Amino acid sequence: MSTPTLRTDRATLQEADRTDVLAGFRERFSLPEGVIYLDGNSLGPLPLGAAERAAEVINNEWAHGLIRSWNTAGWFELPTRLGDKLAKLIGGNDGETVVTDTTSLNLFKALASAVRIQQQDAPGRRVILTERDNFPTDIYIAEGISDFLNSVKAETGEHYEVRLIDENLSLADALDDSVAVVALSHVNYRTGAMWDMAGVSAAAHAAGALVIWDLAHAAGAVPVDLNGANADYAVGCTYKYLNGGPGSPAFIWVNARHQGRFWQPLTGWWSHSAPFAMADSYTAANDVRRFLCGTQPITSMAMIECGLDVSLEADMGQVRAKSLALTDLFISLVEERCGQFGLELITPANHAERGSHVSFSHPEGYAIIQALTDRGVIGDYREPGVLRFGITPLYLSYTDIWDAVEILRDILETGSWDVPAYKARNAVT
Amino acid sequence: MSTPTLRTDRATLQEADRTDVLAGFRERFSLPEGVIYLDGNSLGPLPLGAAERAAEVINNEWAHGLIRSWNTAGWFELPTRLGDKLAKLIGGNDGETVVTDTTSLNLFKALASAVRIQQQDAPGRRVILTERDNFPTDIYIAEGISDFLNSVKAETGEHYEVRLIDENLSLADALDDSVAVVALSHVNYRTGAMWDMAGVSAAAHAAGALVIWDLAHAAGAVPVDLNGANADYAVGCTYKYLNGGPGSPAFIWVNARHQGRFWQPLTGWWSHSAPFAMADSYTAANDVRRFLCGTQPITSMAMIECGLDVSLEADMGQVRAKSLALTDLFISLVEERCGQFGLELITPANHAERGSHVSFSHPEGYAIIQALTDRGVIGDYREPGVLRFGITPLYLSYTDIWDAVEILRDILETGSWDVPAYKARNAVT
Repeated sequence: MSTPTLRTDRATLQEADRTDVLAGFRERFSLPEGVIYLDGNSLGPLPLGAAERAAEVINNEWAHGLIRSWNTAGWFELPTRLGDKLAKLIGGNDGETVVTDTTSLNLFKALASAVRIQQQDAPGRRVILTERDNFPTDIYIAEGISDFLNSVKAETGEHYEVRLIDENLSLADALDDSVAVVALSHVNYRTGAMWDMAGVSAAAHAAGALVIWDLAHAAGAVPVDLNGANADYAVGCTYKYLNGGPGSPAFIWVNARHQGRFWQPLTGWWSHSAPFAMADSYTAANDVRRFLCGTQPITSMAMIECGLDVSLEADMGQVRAKSLALTDLFISLVEERCGQFGLELITPANHAERGSHVSFSHPEGYAIIQALTDRGVIGDYREPGVLRFGITPLYLSYTDIWDAVEILRDILETGSWDVPAYKARNAVT
Repeated sequence: MSTPTLRTDRATLQEADRTDVLAGFRERFSLPEGVIYLDGNSLGPLPLGAAERAAEVINNEWAHGLIRSWNTAGWFELPTRLGDKLAKLIGGNDGETVVTDTTSLNLFKALASAVRIQQQDAPGRRVILTERDNFPTDIYIAEGISDFLNSVKAETGEHYEVRLIDENLSLADALDDSVAVVALSHVNYRTGAMWDMAGVSAAAHAAGALVIWDLAHAAGAVPVDLNGANADYAVGCTYKYLNGGPGSPAFIWVNARHQGRFWQPLTGWWSHSAPFAMADSYTAANDVRRFLCGTQPITSMAMIECGLDVSLEADMGQVRAKSLALTDLFISLVEERCGQFGLELITPANHAERGSHVSFSHPEGYAIIQALTDRGVIGDYREPGVLRFGITPLYLSYTDIWDAVEILRDILETGSWDVPAYKARNAVT
């Protein structure tokens, strides 16, 4: 693989594609004709085999096996079996990860568990530290848990509090002895900026806090080593870079050192130590199954394995190298060819601080994204004014990046975005 | 439809099947050859069309539509659109129901919401009242929420508490002025006993408590009129009598009178008033979408509609009449033909107190259920010692009941259940 030079042309990029060691992975996905898909960080495409896997679940395991399939088709083991597979992509060991529920719910569980540990070890710590620019749900869940606990008026008068890192408050300044837990996204959903996981985890621990990483825009996209970084908890999503399918269940990882004591309040049957004993009070399983809750959507869940298997075949070092080459290329081409149209790069130039998507701000970002979509270049829009482009090395080529930028340039040059149809907001953007 | 007399024979029952007004519904389901399926209360069978619906979601909406399908394929509206459909089966009005998450999680939300209302209206009420014989998860979730709130030491010294109705404590005795909320299953998962929803709801309200109904074994099985009963909240499952598929997302209903004020702590993006504004603090949607949380598993969710559409075509009065006729028949045939083998009926004889399954206790219940399964009669086993048989009028015939009882009689007469292979316990029973 030769990393293309920045001042390049389409023929040079075609040559780069011919020598790309990851090029063969594109055939593992079903992608529509005429589309350059730069939104795999919102919803990854269909891996070949997933439709057949779903048909097998429906027509054989469900229709024929019926209730017996909980045993015979291994449904009961899916959360832990898929969790162990996924763990290999994020630096987890066997028995530390389950696939279940949603990222929001898993963050709630991780926060509840971290708060509970601090209630025992350092009861004065009642601050959940996150950042204003975090994915909003992560802030909302922190507010939800804090609000819920504050509904009981504490005898000490102390309250739980969500503290936000922002331009006025650095992580270092925010990390005082009131912080119970730090909850950050490894890669920022909007800008693509990436935290130094090991450094932040060490800083949090040095300050007496636990740390939770949201890997929604990191798992499958960048090298992640949770145990290497000595993290405490992580949660994330399987339908973005892991290509699990629309709304496929999420995951939660917990460092083995917490497994003997952690607790979370969503105490459904699947987290019980003996779920079929039908005991009339709760006893948590003595392992990561404590983070399970209720019955999972088997068809959606089974398809996750198809996406995971593709990611597990790829070498993450090669994925990262190509991701950086493609994002560098995208950034330089936009600067070169669309420089006069007011797009402002908001993704870090420094490789160590960049995830696997590239974002630009533009006051007419929404309309430009709609115009791009109509031309077959699918990125997405995020408030306020952000054009976001997911760069997924398993199915994007260097030529795709060239072609996408050329279409972007054409839209900007001709002003074809400037029509009411592209400016009108849909329900989901 | 002629309800067969109790002392009957197979030919009489075949005649009853010929005049059964619901007989045509059997063709709407895919059921394996040689199986009499008496476990539709654990996992309903595949409705015709559901496999095609999943294939459409996967091969068109996901593979071709990609991220655009959130708008173009209506994914974003699924929880409310399916909720409104489901509401027609449980006496709900439009805008009162969402399909989302799991029953356990939805119960957590309903409990949290009820507790919050009582914190405002009657702060001394800190008891969650349920019953010892409730589905264990329901008790566990009540314990989870109570334990979580008690982790904050209240200045008043009061604690949240789960109180259990059992043989030593009647509902009437338990309903004192400390009760915040009553959470019961309309139909008991084990015995099939059914509470008087309107009567209990009125008693709870008279005592100053709110009431939550778990409809897992009721929705689609028995007539339910939540508004008629003046209930406050309900939760339930779509994969049992509603035939939504393995682990298909659950539902939650809330009486419109609470919609302006209820709150729950699982405050994910989908419950926000403006989910795509990316605001950095939480504002709840002003309607039942407050009970949503994170992204839902679209493939599993979309199939729910196929099962709902079948149930909506059936007349619930006819379903209930046939359910009672079939359960009466099953009970009388077992008494007549298997009376000497120690099966003890634990399902109420009184129609008004019976749901749509029939259970017997037997010390060797587990092995007998395994032997039945091997002979194609699929019921299930529940601790302690309970043989449970789901009676689903949409796809079971009078003759099925006869044949199932004949196979049960043969197994008991020959003692073919009494072998190690049937006595060894599986992971999931």
